[in-house]
Amino acid sequence: MQDTVTSNRIAADWIAADWGTSNLRLWAIGPGGEILAERSAPEGMGTLAPDQFEPALLRLAEDLLAPDRVTPVLICGMAGAKQGWIEAPYARVPCPPASGAPVTAPTADPRISVRILPGLSQSGPADVMRGEETQIAGFLADEPEFDGTLCLPGTHTKWVRIAGGEVRGFRTAMTGELFALIGRQSVLRHSLSPDGETDETAFAEALRHGFAEPAALSLDLFSIRPASLLDGLAPAAASGRLSGLLIGLELAGARDFWQGRDVVVVGTPGLTARYIAALEQLGGRARAAANPELARSGLVAAYRVLQG
Amino acid sequence: MQDTVTSNRIAADWIAADWGTSNLRLWAIGPGGEILAERSAPEGMGTLAPDQFEPALLRLAEDLLAPDRVTPVLICGMAGAKQGWIEAPYARVPCPPASGAPVTAPTADPRISVRILPGLSQSGPADVMRGEETQIAGFLADEPEFDGTLCLPGTHTKWVRIAGGEVRGFRTAMTGELFALIGRQSVLRHSLSPDGETDETAFAEALRHGFAEPAALSLDLFSIRPASLLDGLAPAAASGRLSGLLIGLELAGARDFWQGRDVVVVGTPGLTARYIAALEQLGGRARAAANPELARSGLVAAYRVLQG
Repeated sequence: MQDTVTSNRIAADWIAADWGTSNLRLWAIGPGGEILAERSAPEGMGTLAPDQFEPALLRLAEDLLAPDRVTPVLICGMAGAKQGWIEAPYARVPCPPASGAPVTAPTADPRISVRILPGLSQSGPADVMRGEETQIAGFLADEPEFDGTLCLPGTHTKWVRIAGGEVRGFRTAMTGELFALIGRQSVLRHSLSPDGETDETAFAEALRHGFAEPAALSLDLFSIRPASLLDGLAPAAASGRLSGLLIGLELAGARDFWQGRDVVVVGTPGLTARYIAALEQLGGRARAAANPELARSGLVAAYRVLQG
Repeated sequence: MQDTVTSNRIAADWIAADWGTSNLRLWAIGPGGEILAERSAPEGMGTLAPDQFEPALLRLAEDLLAPDRVTPVLICGMAGAKQGWIEAPYARVPCPPASGAPVTAPTADPRISVRILPGLSQSGPADVMRGEETQIAGFLADEPEFDGTLCLPGTHTKWVRIAGGEVRGFRTAMTGELFALIGRQSVLRHSLSPDGETDETAFAEALRHGFAEPAALSLDLFSIRPASLLDGLAPAAASGRLSGLLIGLELAGARDFWQGRDVVVVGTPGLTARYIAALEQLGGRARAAANPELARSGLVAAYRVLQG
């Protein structure tokens, strides 16, 4: 029986889930691919032992399950890490972004059947991703012919070369994590804007400087403090300078990924706008992805492939 | 009366104190310049309100005071910062390292008379130091003709150009603070040696790489994590790589301070050895200061000048 709604209850045809380090986000998908419900909970891989994943999933999704059949659940992200629910070994690039075989997770509840998509790895230089490969698959579902670079800014920003429907190579920059650690805990925290307000002129100047003089980073970072003490550098300008120096450094290091290539940026609206502006200021060309729900699109695309 | 010892009590002729962000360290000095006692306490500027400095000083030094005369106390370091006991305005370089007029701190106890030495500031690029200028004065008391660079590695490493008995210019790198934040709190902490053990070969390789490719820092830092996950990079090698990348970056940025110049490194034994080895690996020439107690020597030299 394919009725998806019985006495006001939603019964998912299947469930798509993006399970990261900090959050679980899931969607109940109907038989025609329509989204019946969307849920999230702050129960990420970082706080769960392996045997706590199934209960966390059921807490969030139990009322979405049909009582009389098995509901498939397809998961991407850190739930497949070594410290996660069960390890889904990496697929090695170059390869299509969601080509690796999913791993079946152990479950006790007979109403669910759970599979986890593998991440991607690269050797020389060593690099890994988990979750972003599914966003990439979602992007390629919309633009299968894309030849260029995807930039996924965040705590760990991914730079990904795409051609021929494959991930050809990628690197990760820890810019977002550095920004958070330095901004909240270093001596510079006294000089920065407490609400994250950013002076765009200061950002643009520091971006160009960080890009042109990456070797001076450690000196230029400290210099924000005396500029505030001695010259009255405003907090919003100090925050702009910190962000500009770190993104300028990243764009210098990731130059081969974006110079002379089409770049699509996939992230939160604020970060996406900042990276696009930064790339354009340095002579690159960049745009945002048309569809921001790429993890969900990628899970839907991967599920279709698995169904044959 | 100049007796310094009465009924087994030490009475200092004067007291020298190095009062930093985290610690207070002081010496009771006799009339001939001899050290009668040395004390320290974890009562730094970072945890004291202005009116708590005098009580903290008395807790540590009261039994060193003569009952029947005023004991001068000369202080260097963060006690003279805006958030300290009383602000001792910066002297601006180029100038001799301890040439600024000390500021008298407000005190209630009639047995002490407290003065705080100013730090140094620089404009274009903006930079500041408090405490290191007194170590530099101590160094110049031993080597007044030195023409070269002092490197004072630590949380905030100072690179200082010295010539003609003056500080000609300086820059600060936040390498030590970055190392601590990234090593203890970023995603890399899972890969590093818990006891700080460092593989010297990995350090040397990363040093050369960080020096040659500073733009790649944000990418190369992250890469430590997948190298550990995928290739089994040992914790001591991961710690060496983190340290090497950050010091390599610093030495690239501070190149004008050390290439073709004599460098003297002043710091804890471990850091001093590491910076000397790093400079030599990159073709520099460096040595440790002969006298490691430079703050005390500098306070003694400054006290002599103040006494005329």
